[in-house]
Amino acid sequence: TIVEVLAGEVAKDRWLTGKKVLITAGPTQEKIDPVRYFTNPSSGKMGFALATAAAHLGAEVTLIAGPVSLETPAGVNRVDVVSAEDMFREVDLRFNEHDIIIKSAAVADYRPKLTYEDKMKKQPGNYRLEMERTTDILQTIGQKKTHQFLLGFAAETVDAIEYGKKKMKKKNLDAIVVNNVKEDGAGFGHDTNTATYIDRQLQEHPLPKMPKTQLADEIFRLMKHDITGDVH
Amino acid sequence: TIVEVLAGEVAKDRWLTGKKVLITAGPTQEKIDPVRYFTNPSSGKMGFALATAAAHLGAEVTLIAGPVSLETPAGVNRVDVVSAEDMFREVDLRFNEHDIIIKSAAVADYRPKLTYEDKMKKQPGNYRLEMERTTDILQTIGQKKTHQFLLGFAAETVDAIEYGKKKMKKKNLDAIVVNNVKEDGAGFGHDTNTATYIDRQLQEHPLPKMPKTQLADEIFRLMKHDITGDVH
Repeated sequence: TIVEVLAGEVAKDRWLTGKKVLITAGPTQEKIDPVRYFTNPSSGKMGFALATAAAHLGAEVTLIAGPVSLETPAGVNRVDVVSAEDMFREVDLRFNEHDIIIKSAAVADYRPKLTYEDKMKKQPGNYRLEMERTTDILQTIGQKKTHQFLLGFAAETVDAIEYGKKKMKKKNLDAIVVNNVKEDGAGFGHDTNTATYIDRQLQEHPLPKMPKTQLADEIFRLMKHDITGDVH
Repeated sequence: TIVEVLAGEVAKDRWLTGKKVLITAGPTQEKIDPVRYFTNPSSGKMGFALATAAAHLGAEVTLIAGPVSLETPAGVNRVDVVSAEDMFREVDLRFNEHDIIIKSAAVADYRPKLTYEDKMKKQPGNYRLEMERTTDILQTIGQKKTHQFLLGFAAETVDAIEYGKKKMKKKNLDAIVVNNVKEDGAGFGHDTNTATYIDRQLQEHPLPKMPKTQLADEIFRLMKHDITGDVH
């Protein structure tokens, strides 16, 4: 609404003015046949909250969204995708012209090796489904990036912080937001999240349970410090 | 709303008064680990429309719903489930005390043989996922049923009618609603559907493309003929 947009403009400085921000959100779906697929419980809420926050801060925002039923935030350019491969292609096309890339989507890391155009008939007994790796979007962009600030997300169930730090180095990220999806009120589907922002110096900034909209603001506050050195 | 309820009561005779109707709706989710699962594109709209129509016709309705984001129809008793096994258990518990059972849910026929409590770490290269068959709800109930009228659904992409007739015999159904999910405006996710109702005598009643709410009324009209012999 206009009130929300105005509130956003009044309350925050618009430090992202002139910056192009690329955000991925939601799950991906990896088809076996027309009526069967692999996916994950991502609702897309975190990525959509980040897109809203970035637009409020003055950025030109492109949101690459997996299949979710959320409204496009005002002023945000949205591109809808279904599979991990679609998402990779759309991100890869655009990453070079963007200043900040935030990969909050929960992209499938495996997909069925074969996809059938018609519905598979079931057979008696078990079967083995051959799975292959999808393209690692974060790693590919981490290797190619020049001036971009690259923020990743990690959703883990054990040793989340330690894993997040490893992922950050391995994928050449500038920062990572880690959450333990087994914690109450954290992660997939919820309106709230509990997370830890880890900066370039591997310093941990724990963020208590809060609405994802507020968490998005906190993430940009910490990112501003990383990018501009400004602590306010 | 009250207006809708009244419209339903005025427009139709309440031939299901005193009858107990059990309806399943939506997809099921079959977990690999906390962040990965198999599913299908069922929105649950057809099953929820059938539950609404049955309540309007005077039935006592229980709706066993997979994970969908739809509001419970007025006057309907809803039971939420996630997996095929959950759905089987809830249906099996109740089928005996019901007069009409409509299985419109898109239940997974395979599930991962192993489910992991913590997120699986990805490994380089491909892997094989061992899949096992779930319990065939329709077949199990078809074998056990006594006085119940059992209506199944078939969502196919090739030879839909022929397959529907085979399924009807094999599973001891009283009628089946068949749709070709590759047709425009048919099947999963849409608000409309194109279907064919096949009765006990294997007579085909094609139903042109129409809203799922209207299709639900048509299905009960045809079912009334099958159950009571009344053609109006």
